Amino acid sequence: MKLAVMGAGAVGQSVAQLAGEYGHTIAGISDRGGAVWDPEGIDVNAALARKRKKGSVHSESNIDLLEADYDVLVEATPTTLGDAEPGFGHVTRALSRDRHVVLANKGPMAERYDEVMAAAAGSAGSVRFEATVGGAIPAIATAEGLGAEHISAARGVLNGTANFILTRMQTEGLAYEHVLAEAQDLGVAEADPSFDVNGTDAGLKGVILANVLDGGGHTIGDAHIDGIEDFPANALDVAGEDGMTIRLIVEVTADRVRVGPRLVPKNDTLAVTGTMNILQFDTEYAGQLNISGRGAGGPETASAVLADVDRLGCEPGSKGSSQAE
Amino acid sequence: MKLAVMGAGAVGQSVAQLAGEYGHTIAGISDRGGAVWDPEGIDVNAALARKRKKGSVHSESNIDLLEADYDVLVEATPTTLGDAEPGFGHVTRALSRDRHVVLANKGPMAERYDEVMAAAAGSAGSVRFEATVGGAIPAIATAEGLGAEHISAARGVLNGTANFILTRMQTEGLAYEHVLAEAQDLGVAEADPSFDVNGTDAGLKGVILANVLDGGGHTIGDAHIDGIEDFPANALDVAGEDGMTIRLIVEVTADRVRVGPRLVPKNDTLAVTGTMNILQFDTEYAGQLNISGRGAGGPETASAVLADVDRLGCEPGSKGSSQAE
Repeated sequence: MKLAVMGAGAVGQSVAQLAGEYGHTIAGISDRGGAVWDPEGIDVNAALARKRKKGSVHSESNIDLLEADYDVLVEATPTTLGDAEPGFGHVTRALSRDRHVVLANKGPMAERYDEVMAAAAGSAGSVRFEATVGGAIPAIATAEGLGAEHISAARGVLNGTANFILTRMQTEGLAYEHVLAEAQDLGVAEADPSFDVNGTDAGLKGVILANVLDGGGHTIGDAHIDGIEDFPANALDVAGEDGMTIRLIVEVTADRVRVGPRLVPKNDTLAVTGTMNILQFDTEYAGQLNISGRGAGGPETASAVLADVDRLGCEPGSKGSSQAE
Repeated sequence: MKLAVMGAGAVGQSVAQLAGEYGHTIAGISDRGGAVWDPEGIDVNAALARKRKKGSVHSESNIDLLEADYDVLVEATPTTLGDAEPGFGHVTRALSRDRHVVLANKGPMAERYDEVMAAAAGSAGSVRFEATVGGAIPAIATAEGLGAEHISAARGVLNGTANFILTRMQTEGLAYEHVLAEAQDLGVAEADPSFDVNGTDAGLKGVILANVLDGGGHTIGDAHIDGIEDFPANALDVAGEDGMTIRLIVEVTADRVRVGPRLVPKNDTLAVTGTMNILQFDTEYAGQLNISGRGAGGPETASAVLADVDRLGCEPGSKGSSQAE
């Protein structure tokens, strides 16, 4: 497949670097500074070297990447809330041209899910978004396999930065501000960690899961979100004395998304440590299913994007039933 | 889709009972005593009531189910080793008629994987076998999503009976024979528990995983298998004193399948308790991914069969690339 990658942050760069190993061609990549395009495949290393040196992948071969002749648009620009632009516009323009879209950008699937799905329904292209929930964890594919109508609830730890901070606060007995600074030094937290520590990032993932389970209808505005900003270390001490810990838990139940710090037994399946993520589905016939793994990182998230590229055109049920004709 | 179910044990019965909720029709079901067929959909409850009363689903409408006009053959007859018959013959006959096949029977995929795949390659039908490894755990779909070539190893606890026995022996300090009898009373172990406790069942699952990861070439004869028969309780005591436990671990590495009791830290991800199963993949780009859930049970395994039915015709990569034309 011929991929056009919009966004050259950690995920976009990793997609560009790994696509060849998955049998795909990077025909173009863009960032805020411009784009580079070659239908035979761009020189990825040269483009990323330009970005390191000059701040953009842009070369003389500048182009409106959205209008180019790709098979799949990989939307990996930064997540935005509200109108989810410019990501939303990228997605709908590609679909209107009957191209496939694979998103790593959470904005369109959390804030404008119904509109994206309506655009996909009117397009020969498909939309997939595994990378928007839980990085390397196959959250969406597993939900599709179980069947949304057979899942009664989902919950999990879906922000590695917040989990790292809570884990370190408890094991080392350190204060929030201290551990946050440490996480920033290690690159686990960004310079502006707001979305990670105020629960927004976990909330977006919960909203996307809710949209998958309910067939749409949710936005971040409907979610009830508490974060871990300035979480008191002594609350963790008190919890620890009773064999408990505290985790920033996303809960998706019938029609409701909640995010907040919750007491969890230390030996509970949900009590993953460090930057690990875990997602738990309660199902009608298959009991409880848990998936844990790396919830962030360039190559990890890129592997989810590239798994989605392989799944394009294979929405569960659709092809199986058409083959029966 | 119109399903023909061969085998009316716990899994076959659950598939028949749940198929309607997944949007499919049970057009036939068979057991050793005969078959019942109705292209418009059989009366499942009546067939299962006949089986309970008279020992077979068989009614006047007897038929050679394999030759009937179904879309998907669900092969849920008991697992056999060696030539994997009669399951293997059922699978290849259905494929030769360009029908899809979904297996719960481990025999053909462990003992004759290469032949099954060759038959599928020459058929308009596809073969899927999610239910053969880890019950409700989406082992095969997850491996396909990650891409077999990007998985370096797999390991896990894939036999709930053996895990229940080891868990109870350690927590209650009881002897093997005592806990086995208890497991049989609870229905966790069968009257003849040989395959569960001698490692064969876990070995078959490891061999199937190895076939998926390596594209075939493995049979149970090549696996190195130790079980937990008459496992000494004091070995668990000694392990427990050092914060360890013992689990029957399946390991699939490059070209090798091993099953045996292994020391595992008590708080390790692999140390699931009771009848739970867990599967761990080491990947090239996505780190380590863990999936845990119910590894056996009629409805749980049936849900894996029915998820496979929805995936038919959507082998990873195949449809995505053809859509690009």
